Amino acid sequence: MSEPSSSSRPETTLLVLGATPPTPPPRLGALTGRARVLHADETTLAARLPLADALLVWDFASDAVRRAWPGEGPRPRWVHTASAGVDHLMCPELAASDTVVTNARGVFDQPIAEYVAALVLAMAKDLPRTLGLQRERSWRHRESGRVAGTRACVVGSGPIGRAVAGTLKALGITVALVGRAARPGVHGAAELDRLLTRADWVVCAAPLTDETRGMFDARRFGLMQPSARFVNIGRGPLVVEADLVAALSKRWIAGAALDVFEHEPLPADSPLWTTPGLIVSPHMSGDTVGWRDELGAQFMELYEDWAAGRPLRNVVDKERGYVPGH
Amino acid sequence: MSEPSSSSRPETTLLVLGATPPTPPPRLGALTGRARVLHADETTLAARLPLADALLVWDFASDAVRRAWPGEGPRPRWVHTASAGVDHLMCPELAASDTVVTNARGVFDQPIAEYVAALVLAMAKDLPRTLGLQRERSWRHRESGRVAGTRACVVGSGPIGRAVAGTLKALGITVALVGRAARPGVHGAAELDRLLTRADWVVCAAPLTDETRGMFDARRFGLMQPSARFVNIGRGPLVVEADLVAALSKRWIAGAALDVFEHEPLPADSPLWTTPGLIVSPHMSGDTVGWRDELGAQFMELYEDWAAGRPLRNVVDKERGYVPGH
Repeated sequence: MSEPSSSSRPETTLLVLGATPPTPPPRLGALTGRARVLHADETTLAARLPLADALLVWDFASDAVRRAWPGEGPRPRWVHTASAGVDHLMCPELAASDTVVTNARGVFDQPIAEYVAALVLAMAKDLPRTLGLQRERSWRHRESGRVAGTRACVVGSGPIGRAVAGTLKALGITVALVGRAARPGVHGAAELDRLLTRADWVVCAAPLTDETRGMFDARRFGLMQPSARFVNIGRGPLVVEADLVAALSKRWIAGAALDVFEHEPLPADSPLWTTPGLIVSPHMSGDTVGWRDELGAQFMELYEDWAAGRPLRNVVDKERGYVPGH
Repeated sequence: MSEPSSSSRPETTLLVLGATPPTPPPRLGALTGRARVLHADETTLAARLPLADALLVWDFASDAVRRAWPGEGPRPRWVHTASAGVDHLMCPELAASDTVVTNARGVFDQPIAEYVAALVLAMAKDLPRTLGLQRERSWRHRESGRVAGTRACVVGSGPIGRAVAGTLKALGITVALVGRAARPGVHGAAELDRLLTRADWVVCAAPLTDETRGMFDARRFGLMQPSARFVNIGRGPLVVEADLVAALSKRWIAGAALDVFEHEPLPADSPLWTTPGLIVSPHMSGDTVGWRDELGAQFMELYEDWAAGRPLRNVVDKERGYVPGH
């Protein structure tokens, strides 16, 4: 890797894996004269990877990095992904390398927490049915639920899970936060099953790792109360989707909302679209107006640290698959 | 009025204006041996009113009291309505009488606050559109809004308005509370127009009185921002419904939700059902599971105070049309 240069000739190369359709990352203009910015897409990434000192994974939904990384030649010393999860890009070769991986920790926390609150309240107040009755011009008074005094189990104790817990608590909900290992304020994974049996709301905000893949399956849906509702804003493969469909159909649980899916976009023939009691949304929970600007600004802050040789924030534990710590 | 009796023969008569379909008020069994409980419906109320020492308006949506009260004969000394608003039952003769009127202040506060939060978050997160796209099996990612950092104007500074304000503040929203007269923490009505011009959310939680009838009209919708959303959980006639339809159609405001209407149930041919950007719900915002039990328990607490000659809580200022206070 070349040193960040104060000469007129940039010696640092930043490679940007762009989104399709292209939405160029904002603020990279600030690098003019300081770095050479190369763009790649899924087809050109493998060839350009050896040229890069740093890689910005702007197209965070792509798995191109995971496919291209094991190839020949030098590799960037730093990879930043404009997402909270790193499951799309991690591969054993990247994990074993010296390359530092950082993520967009922080940008999505509060928006996702609000989105979960919106889903919880909508389900408590039976809003989907109200909207359906409105389409039929049908006045049908019903009683709805209170959320204050109910219990939530939030699975995933990173910044997103903690923000979700904070917002639900602000609504008067008692929250149990579950992480990999117990620590003050966080239950360890060993307590999950017990907590599931008493939760009114189960929110999945876990990273996708080998340990968490498929963690919400028939057995765990079977532990939940018939009145419980399940929300997934983490990653699709955390849930065994067929098991969730069955759990809803058999009324093991009362409702669910998925913002993330095993296959995205969700195929038009997926049974999830029409599963009774299930709200389907298109992976939008964290994406509030201005989110791309925030992601761009966050990358530039990290870039300044990297260029100056300062320690980076948001460094992912590549074995665990997320940023450890509080 | 007879004194509350400790003899074996009840001398107090409680008249209950029942709901249609009949949902008997719970807990009145506790009065066995202590009071004679008579029931009335809209057709029998006028004839039975002179027999009653106290009247429980269990059918709080009925205007039978307002119609029957001006008639001949003695009148109950105490009227309790199982609702927050007293607009359905008040008439000049009742207002001028010595009869004490109490209401269900307190029962609906927190449920309604949650309901408003559900509507605010659903509109911020574009949930109605998401549910519509789900029906079409259409994956369409959109950016949504954050509620933290936005501004709400809550009109009505009684317990419901204050509970709404508290819940919205817990979501990070800056709230201006507007009452009839300014007091610490509450803006006076004279400031309403100015506050409307800068609110992202306008929530109507005002009592229906001669002063407030039709307060949300074309002029006031015209003051709001094009991005503003309006929510009414107070009483239908606080809003000039045709003006709201026009304001939404002309995009003077971005959206609205009505839980209360000039005519309830909302007629099937009302244009409100299909006004774009409008959520219609069937006057259910405060009615969470167990609400009838709570209303019954609250009445019994008041009854004990009344029977013992103790001062009553929740006494309505019959001129103003609500319980004054903080």
